[in-house]
Order: sequence, then structure tokens, then C-alpha cells
Amino acid sequence: MKLAVIPGDGIGVEVTAEALKVLRKLVPDLQTTEYDLGATRYNATGELLPDEELAQIREHDAILLGAIGDPRLVGPGILERGLLLNMRFQLDHHVNLRPSRLYPGATSPLAANPDIDFVVVREGTEGPYTGNGGAIRVGTPHEIATEVSINTWFGAERVVRYAFALAQTRRKHLTLIHKTNVLSNAGAIWSRAMETVGAEYPDVETAYCHIDAATIYMVSDPSRFDVIVTDNLFGDIITDLAGAVTGGIGLSASGNIDASGTNPSMFEPVHGSAPDIAGKGIADPTAAILSVALMLRHLGRDEDAARIEQAVEADLAARGDGPIKTSEVGDRIAASL
Amino acid sequence: MKLAVIPGDGIGVEVTAEALKVLRKLVPDLQTTEYDLGATRYNATGELLPDEELAQIREHDAILLGAIGDPRLVGPGILERGLLLNMRFQLDHHVNLRPSRLYPGATSPLAANPDIDFVVVREGTEGPYTGNGGAIRVGTPHEIATEVSINTWFGAERVVRYAFALAQTRRKHLTLIHKTNVLSNAGAIWSRAMETVGAEYPDVETAYCHIDAATIYMVSDPSRFDVIVTDNLFGDIITDLAGAVTGGIGLSASGNIDASGTNPSMFEPVHGSAPDIAGKGIADPTAAILSVALMLRHLGRDEDAARIEQAVEADLAARGDGPIKTSEVGDRIAASL
Ligand SMILES: CC(C)[C@H](C(=O)O)[C@@H](O)C(=O)O
Ligand SMILES: CC(C)[C@H](C(=O)O)[C@@H](O)C(=O)O
Repeated sequence: MKLAVIPGDGIGVEVTAEALKVLRKLVPDLQTTEYDLGATRYNATGELLPDEELAQIREHDAILLGAIGDPRLVGPGILERGLLLNMRFQLDHHVNLRPSRLYPGATSPLAANPDIDFVVVREGTEGPYTGNGGAIRVGTPHEIATEVSINTWFGAERVVRYAFALAQTRRKHLTLIHKTNVLSNAGAIWSRAMETVGAEYPDVETAYCHIDAATIYMVSDPSRFDVIVTDNLFGDIITDLAGAVTGGIGLSASGNIDASGTNPSMFEPVHGSAPDIAGKGIADPTAAILSVALMLRHLGRDEDAARIEQAVEADLAARGDGPIKTSEVGDRIAASL
Repeated sequence: MKLAVIPGDGIGVEVTAEALKVLRKLVPDLQTTEYDLGATRYNATGELLPDEELAQIREHDAILLGAIGDPRLVGPGILERGLLLNMRFQLDHHVNLRPSRLYPGATSPLAANPDIDFVVVREGTEGPYTGNGGAIRVGTPHEIATEVSINTWFGAERVVRYAFALAQTRRKHLTLIHKTNVLSNAGAIWSRAMETVGAEYPDVETAYCHIDAATIYMVSDPSRFDVIVTDNLFGDIITDLAGAVTGGIGLSASGNIDASGTNPSMFEPVHGSAPDIAGKGIADPTAAILSVALMLRHLGRDEDAARIEQAVEADLAARGDGPIKTSEVGDRIAASL
């Protein structure tokens, strides 16, 4: 297994080390190439994602990313657009896969402590994320700025198809989250994709929910969700909320997947680089470790993936309420495999 | 006081009756004109918001709206675009004011039962709500649809100004919620408005938070918020979530305000027409009644507004956990004034 590793910034470096520690236990012949990309590199050299490096990264089976960004070094938007989204778009990571489970032992902020076990299939290459739009009369009282959300049948159909296939392996329930009553042009594509692809999956029950109402259900009745499919922006929002109700985004894993297999997929924790706690060895590496499990499943190693998930589950159940140590969590999970 | 009343559909009719019951106690010389607008009317006549009716509505001091919509009669988007948003846009309701408080007696789904008392100032006339955008090759495998978010300095500056002024009357803390790292054109306008107007309010502390992170704080630490200012779509999303964490949107009031005073402002509960429980007399009219309080405050009757809020507070504190009766809540609150 040839893995491109991008530890990135802040706690990204720390959690990636633990994720690799765990992965090496299951894949002894792992070959890694590390890429120094992120805030520190950009700040020093002005380089974001040089073409040659992206070309090299493409030669790997998968990519493991820690976290990108350091607001003290780089202003907002630069690394997001130039590195993270650049990679997702250039490698056609159209499926942004984000499972949410409330593990026994994890503390939900919800009083009801509900059963939560769903997966969000977030579109990763379209919507308001394309960088279309612009501004005129910038900095004047007449400034006008647009953000253009681009939505295609091609783009929606393929993630809806992925979501139906996934739902069929689970509880056979798929919810579309959108805002079709206001964003009716884009909404029509998504609704049509649900109907058209749905006809091929008669055993999968479907539901629809506006993004605003979805946030209500996420705190009042998250058990209703099995698989969720949604656009790039709504997926960004709802998965952070999902992370929060399942015990914090320190546990949320994600995969940026090119379901066609043409390009390597990229796996990363949902959390950011958290400069405030970086270097202290107290970041929870669980999300990064669970991202490795997603990666292994994507690469067809379902059993190894399940072993990691069970190890994480056991670790969370055994943990007390006290602070954690990054390397100890990695050690414990690696040792238990 | 001349009030245009649009009861609308479903429970809209029921909660509006209670809101008027309460209002009449405080404003004995109230003059109301009822407008039959909504799903039933549209279904029968094809009319959404005839010009003459809007012209008449303009002649009132304020508008009270129940709820609009009935999915059994009208497809998604038609009433939203043709009636509700049409009214907000034509009457230049640029400030969508949505307070959130966790009242004693109301049950939050959050285990920590935190102190929650903030107000969202949502922009109401721009962003992705303008209906710009379109689609080509509709219904084919080559369909492409766009949604264009339009953002102006004019539009952002005035709601940011409103929010700063509001924050100054409260705990002097204002948070901008946006997604400046991805929607950087629009984000730049909002950030600049915060800086520019903020210079005139040196005593108001400011904060910034991405919409995805904001949903996390909303469940993990909602007490951090005092006044929130945000765009039309993010405001839609975050206020539903805010309603949920403060005991359900059955309690969430809102005002659609033309802060210039040129057009009458419109007050409405955040909840919808809830066809599933319509006609049963079990809808909670509290949100509609609190919307009347917002209206009175907007019309300069601060004392009357406070009296309603106190009466609601007392009613919620005295309620048991059992089901409510719409008319009884209205009776109790009206009687206590
Ligand atoms: C950093 C940002 C561009 C990114 C996104 O919005 O997709 C992040 O929030 C995420 O969810 O991975
Ligand atoms: C009905 C819909 C158009 C509306 C909105 O999105 O503004 C509603 O959700 C609201 O928040 O008032």
C-alpha cells in the first residue's frame, strides 16, 4: 500500500502520527511519502500545491491528511481554496463521506442520549464551493459580490447513486437534505436524481428534509437518519452539527472519495488544525484513526477497517472523563489490534 | 393601530387568533384587516399576492402573519417565492429579527440546560434568496442549474449597523456568522461591514464564526452568543437550530423589519403551517404571541411588549409536561395581562 501523507499544520501533525501508528500495525509493508503542504510551507515559500507534487500524489493508493491551516500565518480562504478544495476538485473527490455514530462512552450534549448511527454523503465538487462569482466596486459603498452555486445532473446523480448503494447495505433509508423551496433550480436536479435513481432501489425508503428543519431533527431526533445525501455547503454544515451531537468533532472521520477510482481518495478528520492546543499532545487522534478505517474499507480491506472501529469503540468505552493524551490513545488502539 | 392580518394556512389560522386575543387586551382600539392569502386561496384562484392587495397592506402600521403553505395543495417553492419572500422583498424587510431564549419551564434537548438568550439579525433581502440563477437542458443528463447569491455593501452594512445598535442595548457582543473561507467574495463584504461599522461602536466586542462551527457552538456553548448577524441563508439555518435548542420552534418569534420605516414590518412565528396537526387545537400559539411582543416593541410600545414577554414567561414556567390547548394558552396569557 502506497500512501501519500499530508500531516499539515497544528494538531494535524500530531493526530496523523497516531493514525499511522495504528495503520502500520495492520499494514506492515506500508509505504508512505510525506508531503509538506500547509500554512508553514506557504508562509515560507508561497507554495500551495505545486503541479509536480500533485502529480506525485496521484501515484498513490490513497492520501491521508491531518489538518490544514494556521490563522496566525495565513489569512482565511487561501489554503482552503488553494490546497484543500484544490485537491478535492482536481482529484474529483465527488463523494465526501462522513459517518456519525454516538459511541458508548462518548458524551453527547443531548439530554436524551439517543441512538445515533448515520452517514452523510456530501457532494464534494460543486455547489457554492466552485469559486465562481466575483465582485465589483470592491471596497466602495457600491460593492456587489456574487457567489454562484453550480449544480449539474452529472454531479448530483453520481453521489445520489452512491448514497442509494450505501443505504442498501445499511438500514435502507435515504434522506435528501436541501432547500428546494428557495433554491429551486438546484433543488430540482437533486429531487429528480432522488426519483430517478430511487426507481432502481425500490427497497430503499426515501425522505426529504429542508436544511433548516434538518438541524432541528439533528438535535431532537437524530435516530431518524440512516444515510443522508446533500450538497457541498449543506453537507459542510450538517456534518459539523452531527459531529457535535455525537460527542464532538474530535471523533468525526471523513473520506474525500473519487468513486470512479480514477484518482486516489483522501481521508481526513473533520476537525481543523486547532492552533490553540497544537504541540501540547492533548488532541484526540480518534477522528484521524477512524479516517484510516474509512480508508481501509475504501481500499477493500473491510475486516481491517472493522478491527480499527472495534478498537476505537472499546477505547472510548474504557476512557474516563479526564483529559486524554494524543500518543496514549494511539498506543492503546495500536496495541489492542 | 392598523394591523394587516394574514392568518395563512393550517395552524397559522389557529395561532393568529390567539395572538390577536392577546393583542386586543393591550390595544383595545385595534383595527384589523384580514387578507386571505396562502395555499387555499392559491389553490382555488391561482392568486398569490395581487398588486392591489399588497398596495392595501402597505397602508397598515404592521403585518401579522400566521403561517403559509400546505404541501397537499401547492408544490414546494410557489408560495415561498410568490408570497412570503415576495412580501419580504417588496416591503424591503432587510432585518429578519429572531430572538432565542431558553425560558424557565421550557425543555431544551441539551443536557447542560445552558443559559440561552441571544438575538439573530438575519439579512432578509439578498444572498441566495434573490431567485437569481436558472437552469439549462432541464430534465436531461446535461442539466446545469445555478443559484446566484447576491450580496451588496448596501445590504450588509445596514443590517450590520442594526445589529451593532442592538448589541449596544444588550450584552455588547456581536458575532458574525458566515463562511468567509469559501464564500470569499460575499464574505469580504460582511467582514468589511463588521470592521467599518464596528469602529463606530468601540464598546461592542465582536467575534466571527463559520456557519459550520456555529452549529457546534449552538449545541455545545450557546451562552457565548448575544447578538448574531448573518446572511439570509445562514440565518435561516441557524435560527431553526436556535429554536430547537431553546425548546422547539413552537416558541420562536420573528420580525421581518424594514428598519427605515418606509414599509410596514411583518411579524410571524418561525414555525410553519404544520398540516399534520392543523385543526386539532393543539398548536402552541406562544411563538405567534411572542411575535406580537416583537411587533409592539417595533412600534415603540416597549412596555406592552415586556408585559407579554413576562406573561409568556410565567405561563411557560407554570405549564406541566402535558399536551397544550391552543385557545387555553391564549386565554391564560390574555387573562394575565
Ligand atoms: C476548511 C473548509 C474549506 C472545509 C469545508 O468547508 O469543506 C471544512 O469545513 C470541511 O468541512 O472539511
Ligand atoms: C419558508 C421559507 C421560504 C422560509 C425561509 O427560508 O426564509 C422559512 O424557512 C423561514 O425561516 O422563515
